[in-house]
Amino acid sequence: MHIHNQLLITDIPRRNMYLFGNKVAIVFKRMRISHREFYARTNKVANALMHLGLRKGSRCAILAKNNNAYLECFYGVPKAGGVFVPLNYRLSPRELVHILNDCCPQILIYDERFGDKVDSIKDRVNVENFISLGGPQGSEGEYEQLLDQSSKEEPEISLSQLGSEDDCCIIYTSGTTGMPKGVVLTQRNMVANMWGVQVAYRCTHLDTHIAVMPFYHAGSLQYSAVHYAVGGTVVILERFDVEDFFRVVEREKVTTAFLVSSLLERLAEEWKKSDYDIRSLRLIFYGASGIPRERLKEILSTFECQFTQGYGMTELGPRGVSYFTPEDHEAAMKNPAKERRLSSCGTVTPTVEIKIVDDSGKILSAGEIGEICVRGEPVFRCYWNNEKETEQALRDGWFHTGDLGFLDEDGFLYIVDRKKDMIISGGENIYSAEVEKVILSHPCVLDCAVFGIPDKEWGEAVHAMIVLRPGMRTSEKEIVEFCKQHMASYKKPRSIQFVDFIPRNSMGKIVKQELRDQYLKNSEGSRTHNGSR
Amino acid sequence: MHIHNQLLITDIPRRNMYLFGNKVAIVFKRMRISHREFYARTNKVANALMHLGLRKGSRCAILAKNNNAYLECFYGVPKAGGVFVPLNYRLSPRELVHILNDCCPQILIYDERFGDKVDSIKDRVNVENFISLGGPQGSEGEYEQLLDQSSKEEPEISLSQLGSEDDCCIIYTSGTTGMPKGVVLTQRNMVANMWGVQVAYRCTHLDTHIAVMPFYHAGSLQYSAVHYAVGGTVVILERFDVEDFFRVVEREKVTTAFLVSSLLERLAEEWKKSDYDIRSLRLIFYGASGIPRERLKEILSTFECQFTQGYGMTELGPRGVSYFTPEDHEAAMKNPAKERRLSSCGTVTPTVEIKIVDDSGKILSAGEIGEICVRGEPVFRCYWNNEKETEQALRDGWFHTGDLGFLDEDGFLYIVDRKKDMIISGGENIYSAEVEKVILSHPCVLDCAVFGIPDKEWGEAVHAMIVLRPGMRTSEKEIVEFCKQHMASYKKPRSIQFVDFIPRNSMGKIVKQELRDQYLKNSEGSRTHNGSR
Repeated sequence: MHIHNQLLITDIPRRNMYLFGNKVAIVFKRMRISHREFYARTNKVANALMHLGLRKGSRCAILAKNNNAYLECFYGVPKAGGVFVPLNYRLSPRELVHILNDCCPQILIYDERFGDKVDSIKDRVNVENFISLGGPQGSEGEYEQLLDQSSKEEPEISLSQLGSEDDCCIIYTSGTTGMPKGVVLTQRNMVANMWGVQVAYRCTHLDTHIAVMPFYHAGSLQYSAVHYAVGGTVVILERFDVEDFFRVVEREKVTTAFLVSSLLERLAEEWKKSDYDIRSLRLIFYGASGIPRERLKEILSTFECQFTQGYGMTELGPRGVSYFTPEDHEAAMKNPAKERRLSSCGTVTPTVEIKIVDDSGKILSAGEIGEICVRGEPVFRCYWNNEKETEQALRDGWFHTGDLGFLDEDGFLYIVDRKKDMIISGGENIYSAEVEKVILSHPCVLDCAVFGIPDKEWGEAVHAMIVLRPGMRTSEKEIVEFCKQHMASYKKPRSIQFVDFIPRNSMGKIVKQELRDQYLKNSEGSRTHNGSR
Repeated sequence: MHIHNQLLITDIPRRNMYLFGNKVAIVFKRMRISHREFYARTNKVANALMHLGLRKGSRCAILAKNNNAYLECFYGVPKAGGVFVPLNYRLSPRELVHILNDCCPQILIYDERFGDKVDSIKDRVNVENFISLGGPQGSEGEYEQLLDQSSKEEPEISLSQLGSEDDCCIIYTSGTTGMPKGVVLTQRNMVANMWGVQVAYRCTHLDTHIAVMPFYHAGSLQYSAVHYAVGGTVVILERFDVEDFFRVVEREKVTTAFLVSSLLERLAEEWKKSDYDIRSLRLIFYGASGIPRERLKEILSTFECQFTQGYGMTELGPRGVSYFTPEDHEAAMKNPAKERRLSSCGTVTPTVEIKIVDDSGKILSAGEIGEICVRGEPVFRCYWNNEKETEQALRDGWFHTGDLGFLDEDGFLYIVDRKKDMIISGGENIYSAEVEKVILSHPCVLDCAVFGIPDKEWGEAVHAMIVLRPGMRTSEKEIVEFCKQHMASYKKPRSIQFVDFIPRNSMGKIVKQELRDQYLKNSEGSRTHNGSR
């Protein structure tokens, strides 16, 4: 232990055991785990894994729904010197095999409900040990047995042989092109991220956080981890359900929650009808993407609590680059002159530096759109096994996010589009996300995806895929007219496809490259078909 | 610039120039300095100092009342690779000479009102350059001339040649024994401290901080620096004056302030009488020391804002080891069961680990009193030129604070006494601070100091020096009776001295070692005198 060094992720359970020993750290189903017990359990995880032969730097993956073991492994695996790899349980077997053969975990801990999935890939991966967590019916798995057999003493490696530069986690991003990439986060990254998250939630030992989003989502995991880290309580739900949510908020006097935008919308609808006493909820951190500003204002005014949202990514572990704070929300809701800021993702957090650059690397001024670049302690070390992508992303002292955005005069950051989703038509830059926002604000539209397709005259042309709300009807012409009313005419779609649904990847993201490829293949096919008539 | 590295103190002005260029950063007298101008001015400071020959690691001291140059040098001196040394202007020439010959600054920047003091010591120190800041009448000093002649471009050394382990500041602690010690704080320390302070204030770019406590106080300097760092505004007052304070809070819509306990008391008295609109003030960070709990409750209830206090020290730069948050205040003011916590200094902040140990180093449990030990990024690197004191303080992986305290079952930290001020009488530990608190709660008592004196029977005996409130009268017997009513009898003073004032050092601290020495010398004198009769 070095006096001046960063406290590591692995130091936190010991710290909390000493300060908050008898306090409840984790609530899951009927389990109430105190900070003292949690410390012991993270030690047992580490000792059990080392007994199975886990060596420093080896990976230990987890494939599970939300449960206490997830957080125990998040803190416990690095205590053995291991690297924790949360896996998205929505991934196809093919994708899982790709990831497992990419990071080659020595151990895979899995929820028995995914037993079939695990069985189906066992032969195609090089995992030495599989540890089951027990089933959905509460049957005890090997995990609990292993813990029972292990010492609750903190292993020596955790006490004195770890450092800030050790790898701590690998989190796979879905990537909107190609196969998932493993984002390697060191202890330094994770710790910096954690305290950055604390600033967003302003969480203290007095808070109780409800974890409803899946832990394979880097945000959900970190946000829960930080509430534990400050000595608070984390109440874990296996999945989101409105009724459960309200009941647990009332029972546990929950103070903070993290919700993606679609769940925020659903919750808003039920909020006023609810009979539960949910006044304890003081802050909701929400994913802002995809909600038009007017609708967002409406949603937020439903609740009687504070709000935070931000701009982050797995490469920052997934700490926000910027946060739109409760005070920013208050100002924007009250003051029409500041309402526009509801579409921003706030101001840049203090421990990172950002710049917006054009393609030549020139630093742009307020109002000018360019690629957002970030540097500072939260920035990931590398993509696992992927030197090319790492070099592409981390260059000239900056992480190039691939996101396009701009800063306004007051330092608020606006995200405009993914760089590779920008459409260049007739020499003009058209941001697909902007066109999508306009189309989504049309009352008949439920979902939409906009991307560029090759065009002889314009280079690229704007193409829109649209899903209508049930029972609603409209025409291509009406949508185009609507677009012309709400943005510059050159941005309007040149062609529209009405479809039943927009395909998304396992993280819920639209993979535009695939949509475009599919579209081109189909239209080529139809042309071929036409030609062969 | 390394992507994953900590943002340094020296990176902050550049970051803020880019994000908040046109926003006001510093207000001092009639000057309103924007973030863009502040960035330029810190670069000019660095370029000017390098032109004078400042080399990496050289010290640059400042002896001044609060002004804009203080913060410019705090950020600017390290940009030249220099180490910033703020000096307490209340120090005697003898103490100043000691410090200047201890850290040997190459450059001393001074306020012209301290010109005589500087002249009187010039011959006894080895400073190469003296730079005057201009006088109290606003005459322009050499500082402004040097800036005028310097480039506003950021020097190369600041852009690429500094690191987290470089020394950034040396701040001298008054020390309650012997001569001041120089606390060396690295960039890593200062940055960790800064974001720790942010959590206490919860400050954002929307805040305006009023700096009224002298900047040579590590707290006052850091608290202002962090409000600047998040993109906020710092309004600097040369000194505290109730009328000025209210006027400036109204004019600048000040949101946060830092006040030592005596000023908090004075402000509370004037608060309700004031005609100024001071509703913008949302949080006061106060020094809690020396205010009995009942009185504190009374004071706090006067204000209509939130409160924070904490336990910190220069060796932590001076970030709090613990903070008693606004929510903690609220709970303690509302709930009688939690009122006792008003005497605590809150819960331990997340980036440090603490332990309470006995003399053998054994870790103590909740409720047990021992020495408070701390580790983590905020802990200072060393005492300048003082290996012995450094080794004494930083050992076995922990900073031994020299403070005695305990944790309660809920993780709240209570400070009991300085270790060396504890009195051992008849085998019992008696905490001088506890006895002082009781005596101070007597209605006749204005000030008091308690220390141990040698006693043949008990080893040590409790001795109290007491200053009565004007016009009040009481007796030794009455005080002793009062003490017996409010604490265990063995803690009561065995002898009492009524005096006109309690001598304090230049930081306002009572130096008990000196009081005891003086007392023993006098009593010996009087005995000799008696003997010679």
